[in-house]
Amino acid sequence: MKFATMPDDTPDGRLHVVSRDLTRCMPAEAAATMQTLLEGWERLAPGLAAQYAALNAGAGVPFEAGRALAPLPRAWQWLDGSAYQSHGHLMSKVFGMADSPVDRPLMYQGLSDRFLPATADVPLPSEEDGIDFEGEFGVICGPVPMGTGAEAARGHIRLLVQINDWSLRVVAPTEMRTGFGWVQAKPACSAAPVAVTPDELGDAWRDARVDLPLSVEWNGDSFGLVEGYQMAWGFDELVAHAARTRDLVAGTIIGSGTVSNANFRDVGSSCIAERRGIEMLDLGAARTPYMRFGDRVRMECRLRSGAPLFGAIDQTVVKR
Amino acid sequence: MKFATMPDDTPDGRLHVVSRDLTRCMPAEAAATMQTLLEGWERLAPGLAAQYAALNAGAGVPFEAGRALAPLPRAWQWLDGSAYQSHGHLMSKVFGMADSPVDRPLMYQGLSDRFLPATADVPLPSEEDGIDFEGEFGVICGPVPMGTGAEAARGHIRLLVQINDWSLRVVAPTEMRTGFGWVQAKPACSAAPVAVTPDELGDAWRDARVDLPLSVEWNGDSFGLVEGYQMAWGFDELVAHAARTRDLVAGTIIGSGTVSNANFRDVGSSCIAERRGIEMLDLGAARTPYMRFGDRVRMECRLRSGAPLFGAIDQTVVKR
Repeated sequence: MKFATMPDDTPDGRLHVVSRDLTRCMPAEAAATMQTLLEGWERLAPGLAAQYAALNAGAGVPFEAGRALAPLPRAWQWLDGSAYQSHGHLMSKVFGMADSPVDRPLMYQGLSDRFLPATADVPLPSEEDGIDFEGEFGVICGPVPMGTGAEAARGHIRLLVQINDWSLRVVAPTEMRTGFGWVQAKPACSAAPVAVTPDELGDAWRDARVDLPLSVEWNGDSFGLVEGYQMAWGFDELVAHAARTRDLVAGTIIGSGTVSNANFRDVGSSCIAERRGIEMLDLGAARTPYMRFGDRVRMECRLRSGAPLFGAIDQTVVKR
Repeated sequence: MKFATMPDDTPDGRLHVVSRDLTRCMPAEAAATMQTLLEGWERLAPGLAAQYAALNAGAGVPFEAGRALAPLPRAWQWLDGSAYQSHGHLMSKVFGMADSPVDRPLMYQGLSDRFLPATADVPLPSEEDGIDFEGEFGVICGPVPMGTGAEAARGHIRLLVQINDWSLRVVAPTEMRTGFGWVQAKPACSAAPVAVTPDELGDAWRDARVDLPLSVEWNGDSFGLVEGYQMAWGFDELVAHAARTRDLVAGTIIGSGTVSNANFRDVGSSCIAERRGIEMLDLGAARTPYMRFGDRVRMECRLRSGAPLFGAIDQTVVKR
């Protein structure tokens, strides 16, 4: 099934079921909001299957992706991993940080009180902060009890989403050196308009990873076409890591971290910092600047058939 | 004014106004929940003044602090500073981490989807994780626009609270070395039952700091009697720091970090890690163990007159 949240003058918006081809939608009957659905998934989701079938048979109204909010417009918890080791190795080399530990995933807790809509302008205070995008995948969980292992955790993954984890690179190293993680360096993320159940990926939901390419364009130019599968830790392991000492509330979103591939010189990157890191290694200095106000980034992941999946993030950075 | 949230079978509970002496309470008429009050403070708070006056004149029913939830049982955002430099200096010396930066507060984003009630048992998975308490103060804000400076930020502070920031010390250094901050090392916090407006402190709300002592007892023995004033950064500066690149949502809680004084050898500490650090410096090795299941910690801050303020945190760690 596929879901989007349409604006209705409440912070949580109105949950809609969306047709597989993303052309039509209708308000979900069983739950008014995504959070409500996630809290009562076992009870509520089966009733939505009939609506989804009707949509795929032509019912519903046109789905206006450009009006959609984030699928979960605000979440009680956002924990972002950094599961692509090619990204971690490069960043640690370039920024002089400790490299990724080998025995555990990297993860930080980020701002979750709002996820920006896929096509909304992104207001930020200063170009001097080093404005960067980060293309990611994420999962939205039901409630996960403390101590849940990876195998059981997989069963608590309800939905997959596509995220742009906005990052301020000039601030980031200063905050990392403290060991406290990021606050100023991680403003609100954005999310593609549609959340999908894992079965929508078919075989491309593999080992709790999204085995699909993410396309990233910056101001209309291709910047990366990176494969989602190369995570050192699957989402099942990321969820289990997050739940080791805490119960995860329904609606917890867990991110993959910047999608990155070992052959980044061939396939490009899903963030500017990675390209700058490659330039520092290859050319001795970074040449690609960070984003300027007015710059636009587009990110989309489709099935290998070309069929749409999450819809696209397509947004412009503006001065706050 | 003083507020508490009583259980009512919803996650947000029912907001109550509490008498100044914490003996009586009544349901708040203007707002059903603390979050609602915080979102509409200017409009709603004035109407509660009459209820508060009536309570202080003897109206209401007995306030059962032991039944209260946290004043804000779940928050969209919890950002915890580390504003007591005597704590930071000692921890960095002992754990070999970078010392506090001098030009900016330390701050991390923590779990906010639940704050445990003041007297609820605290379920944690393992004594081997190094279970520790951290006595803190915190502020709850109204909405704070991105880029708000410290002076204006002070006006957005609605309520003061007292917090126990549970910490797992064996996990913490591993997570700090990554630069990503804490996830596993910071399970859910607990909060004292009553939130108070800053004016309830009189002159003890000074320079946006709580100029009052925090008493900490571990298994009935005094562990610290530490003064709240010695913050290197006031709450106004902590709020401004948090808001530099993000809008803060109403109900954002900002913590002081572990209350600590420069003369810690005389006044004690509000966390075990600090005492262990002192032992490492003075005796060559830590002698005080972390908490065991069944251990109890009590924290309370009163006015210098002896009058109650936030009520007490008094809770037991149990095996999950």
